[in-house]
Amino acid sequence: MAEFSIIDTYFNRQINSSVDLGVGDDSALLTPPPNQQLVICADTLVAGRHFPLDTNPHAIGWKSVAVNLSDIAAMGAKPQSILLALSLPQIDHDWLKGFSQGLYDCCDQFGVSLIGGDTTQSPHLTISVTALGWIEAGQAVTRSGAQIGDYVCVSGQVGDAAYALQHLGHHLQKRLDYPTPRCQLGQKLKGLASSMIDISDGLAQDLGHILKASHKGAILNLENLAMSPVLQDLCHEQKWQYALAGGDDYELCFTISPQNYKTLLQQQLDVNTTIIGTITNSQTLSFQHHDQAVMLNLNGYQHFA
Amino acid sequence: MAEFSIIDTYFNRQINSSVDLGVGDDSALLTPPPNQQLVICADTLVAGRHFPLDTNPHAIGWKSVAVNLSDIAAMGAKPQSILLALSLPQIDHDWLKGFSQGLYDCCDQFGVSLIGGDTTQSPHLTISVTALGWIEAGQAVTRSGAQIGDYVCVSGQVGDAAYALQHLGHHLQKRLDYPTPRCQLGQKLKGLASSMIDISDGLAQDLGHILKASHKGAILNLENLAMSPVLQDLCHEQKWQYALAGGDDYELCFTISPQNYKTLLQQQLDVNTTIIGTITNSQTLSFQHHDQAVMLNLNGYQHFA
Repeated sequence: MAEFSIIDTYFNRQINSSVDLGVGDDSALLTPPPNQQLVICADTLVAGRHFPLDTNPHAIGWKSVAVNLSDIAAMGAKPQSILLALSLPQIDHDWLKGFSQGLYDCCDQFGVSLIGGDTTQSPHLTISVTALGWIEAGQAVTRSGAQIGDYVCVSGQVGDAAYALQHLGHHLQKRLDYPTPRCQLGQKLKGLASSMIDISDGLAQDLGHILKASHKGAILNLENLAMSPVLQDLCHEQKWQYALAGGDDYELCFTISPQNYKTLLQQQLDVNTTIIGTITNSQTLSFQHHDQAVMLNLNGYQHFA
Repeated sequence: MAEFSIIDTYFNRQINSSVDLGVGDDSALLTPPPNQQLVICADTLVAGRHFPLDTNPHAIGWKSVAVNLSDIAAMGAKPQSILLALSLPQIDHDWLKGFSQGLYDCCDQFGVSLIGGDTTQSPHLTISVTALGWIEAGQAVTRSGAQIGDYVCVSGQVGDAAYALQHLGHHLQKRLDYPTPRCQLGQKLKGLASSMIDISDGLAQDLGHILKASHKGAILNLENLAMSPVLQDLCHEQKWQYALAGGDDYELCFTISPQNYKTLLQQQLDVNTTIIGTITNSQTLSFQHHDQAVMLNLNGYQHFA
């Protein structure tokens, strides 16, 4: 079976009316909405590294889209479409059926079209997705805008994915396998958050990127970290390790002025947000627990271990 | 060394002023030029499959960009930027230095910026590049516009890359390792060509995509195929196999009315073009040599062998 048949069979479904030309030519074509900037990112999942080798192909398809939509959400933008670069060892129709279904399920849930890409044979399963979105010109929420006195906030719960990776089969595995990109929250934070990032490498490390880009520091109140009950029951050291250094949560971490946070809470949100700390002028990230300073030795996700 | 250091060290050079935000945030940001459509594609190179394992890393970097710019050129569009998804087995600084230099050399030659992407560890070297370009709304040259009586044309010479792959060390290897995306010709053909594709899988197979999309046929005059002298010296069967079924040439194959072809030739072009045949209403691709019908048994590049 040639590449063309794989694409026709599994990756050539109907596209949104906002796409002028999708799969099947040298390139795809899109007309930019008026007065918008293009937001674009690319993220790769490598089998055995970003997901266990025996992961359900449906979950791999879902996650390969979700992690990219999460990057679009972290700019405050609305996702529109993706391109898929799929490198796989052999043609396994059951696998392709499950993978493509998972990919389209995530696309459909967030109103996104698959508009192009490439399928190649490779000794190792590797999935690179490029995601595109749009945002009103000048409205993107970058990492560099955190202000002294802003709240540091996080959506949902942190540490679930890292816990699940060490306890496969636990009900939290759905948080590892099927992360939810916070597309709605991201767009609501446009014009409100002063900086934003999605948590892929661990809260402490990803917040560190905001602090570095913003030339600020932060102090986090560990008792405010929102965690699943099973993590809450762990000893302090363990749960903080999961919550602060565990990757793959794909929640949003953002900074926001107290006034804008009030405005945010007046809106209907599909995920809770928690204030976990405050931006300072210290240039460092420090931790306290019920007003007592806490020293932690954390490691974020290392892409090259 | 973490991903961030690799990106900062090798992939964070100056970007074009047309890019609002490049490497270093969740996503990149671009302002669309007025009244233009976005043209976007993604292509993957897998070590040992798309290039020999011992290929010079500089050439791998060049080619990973060039094959994508070729897809942008094949729409008649002007390339602007790329995203890189690089999966590599280990951190080899010599390799990264050569690869990034080759990538930037190709970017610089065609006025393109690296604006984002992802670096991950993987057992197998895999490079996925997404390329973006822009074209005046409605001007993109797709595969579906070929008209009966149009010339079938090809840029440059065909078969060089396939010959070089079987004769490594031959001077034609530079055509395999350093393909030239026909960016200037592609843009000149905007408004002139009725259909266009780049030759990545072999002229016969890629022209076949035009014929299928356009619901037309073609007859090719084999004596008109432009080939390097070393290929011209081969027996008919051999040279036609290279020229028609050899992949990786990244020349442009296009269809154009005789009148528009005259207009094209009045312009200064940086590569020759050759008329190799005519579009027919036959729905098939057939070959003749000095007016004698020729039957050929060709195979294009199969992505899954």
